[in-house]
Amino acid sequence: MKTRRSDRLVDMARYMLERPRKLISLSYFAKRYESAKSSISEDLSILKRTFQERGTGLLETVPGAAGGARFVPSMSEAEAKTFIEEIRQLVNDETRVLPGGYVYLSDLLGRPDILRQAGRLIATQYLRDDIDAVMTAATKGVPLAQAVAEQLNVPFVIVRDDAKVTEGPTVSVNYLTGSSKRVEKMELSRRSLRTGSRVLVVDDFMKAGGTIQGMQTLVGEFDGTVVGTAVFAEGRSTTRLLDHFTSLLHVDTNLKNGDPILVTAGNYLEEIYSHKD
Amino acid sequence: MKTRRSDRLVDMARYMLERPRKLISLSYFAKRYESAKSSISEDLSILKRTFQERGTGLLETVPGAAGGARFVPSMSEAEAKTFIEEIRQLVNDETRVLPGGYVYLSDLLGRPDILRQAGRLIATQYLRDDIDAVMTAATKGVPLAQAVAEQLNVPFVIVRDDAKVTEGPTVSVNYLTGSSKRVEKMELSRRSLRTGSRVLVVDDFMKAGGTIQGMQTLVGEFDGTVVGTAVFAEGRSTTRLLDHFTSLLHVDTNLKNGDPILVTAGNYLEEIYSHKD
Repeated sequence: MKTRRSDRLVDMARYMLERPRKLISLSYFAKRYESAKSSISEDLSILKRTFQERGTGLLETVPGAAGGARFVPSMSEAEAKTFIEEIRQLVNDETRVLPGGYVYLSDLLGRPDILRQAGRLIATQYLRDDIDAVMTAATKGVPLAQAVAEQLNVPFVIVRDDAKVTEGPTVSVNYLTGSSKRVEKMELSRRSLRTGSRVLVVDDFMKAGGTIQGMQTLVGEFDGTVVGTAVFAEGRSTTRLLDHFTSLLHVDTNLKNGDPILVTAGNYLEEIYSHKD
Repeated sequence: MKTRRSDRLVDMARYMLERPRKLISLSYFAKRYESAKSSISEDLSILKRTFQERGTGLLETVPGAAGGARFVPSMSEAEAKTFIEEIRQLVNDETRVLPGGYVYLSDLLGRPDILRQAGRLIATQYLRDDIDAVMTAATKGVPLAQAVAEQLNVPFVIVRDDAKVTEGPTVSVNYLTGSSKRVEKMELSRRSLRTGSRVLVVDDFMKAGGTIQGMQTLVGEFDGTVVGTAVFAEGRSTTRLLDHFTSLLHVDTNLKNGDPILVTAGNYLEEIYSHKD
């Protein structure tokens, strides 16, 4: 039985939201709803308009016989500003400061509402990029990496400093920690990343960037390409090892004026939205 | 300006899908779309019907002045069977067997499509339960815990055997590993879980269940209640330390007939769907 337009709209919205960046063909929808392709095309225009006006992403339509539509999660500059200001206020809290100038973030990186938005924001940066996998370092990078991978609809892989027996054969690299200049080792299961993958590196916190540099080296060991590097928060560092990255927040806990913490927006808005329009 | 029905339907579907289990009031939608509550009520009936027929959850409407609607992710028995059979085939692969009888699962637990479904399936079990947090053990439990937490729309917390400085003050317990009878320690950041929380314990793999028993003890240290325990896969164990849990898969790698691996459905379908109707 032919499905009514109202029902089609609701189901199409759900179907596409649950499969970000995947191209769904007109024929698939036509068959699913036993409706004419021309009706489906009209549905897609309505979806496109509504997503544009109110949504959490864009509906892109691809014309032609092999065409269809895909939902690409993204965030407008205004929404990004609001979100970054919201998390900035949450982090800018002196009770988060731990001995050694570390900052407690685990509660925020365990909240689905924050992760969903952070993932969507970082995915916005790579709207037009082909990405095969998201890479992060265990354990605290995992939630953000998973959130980004979900919005990009690609797998994520977890690099560890102590690969367990359950990881099987691994590839390892040594890297220099930026702060203490120690040489450390990190490993990734051989099986988890295809050779030649295009990889987005994600982490919760970056100081000098040693861990991230290690991950970038590891991508090279898989003959892969680092498409970008994004972190939730960067700390202040006098020995920054890498230049190209985006951060949502900048956290400073070694202030000259004696304040325990100062959180400001990271370089994200400037790096991403200033190039647009 | 009053929003058209078609646009309302698309936006309402998206809005509710992104906020699982959260009650959205009729007044909120009426204001958002500058439309009469009676129109919104009709919209909700359409959404309810479509979600029921095709969806990935139920739309529940709450009548009365304080009423509204919420989207509760869930999975039908038929869909659950299909999904469990799909992952059973993926895991039942002798190249996954590692020395010591361990099984490689990290690739599957890094795939958003599998995690989304596994999370929704486990959330189905706790459709009518109040849950404040999902708990898991670092590192490999994290993806599944996050996936479940997302569907329940509650935070997740990560227990570690080596809490880092970035975790701040922790609460720790000792526990007995079931397989090797060693005494180990696990810790959870004091700040990450509210006293008296109702907790769902989730893990990727359970053998004897020592880690899970440790987590249950830890919930007690926070004066909390363990609402349930769910694992992606259980291994065969002659020294099972706990009775009440659900597993999606049962994995056996110590077979008398010499086969390297045998994966069957876990106790999930039997435990959950047999009680219904």
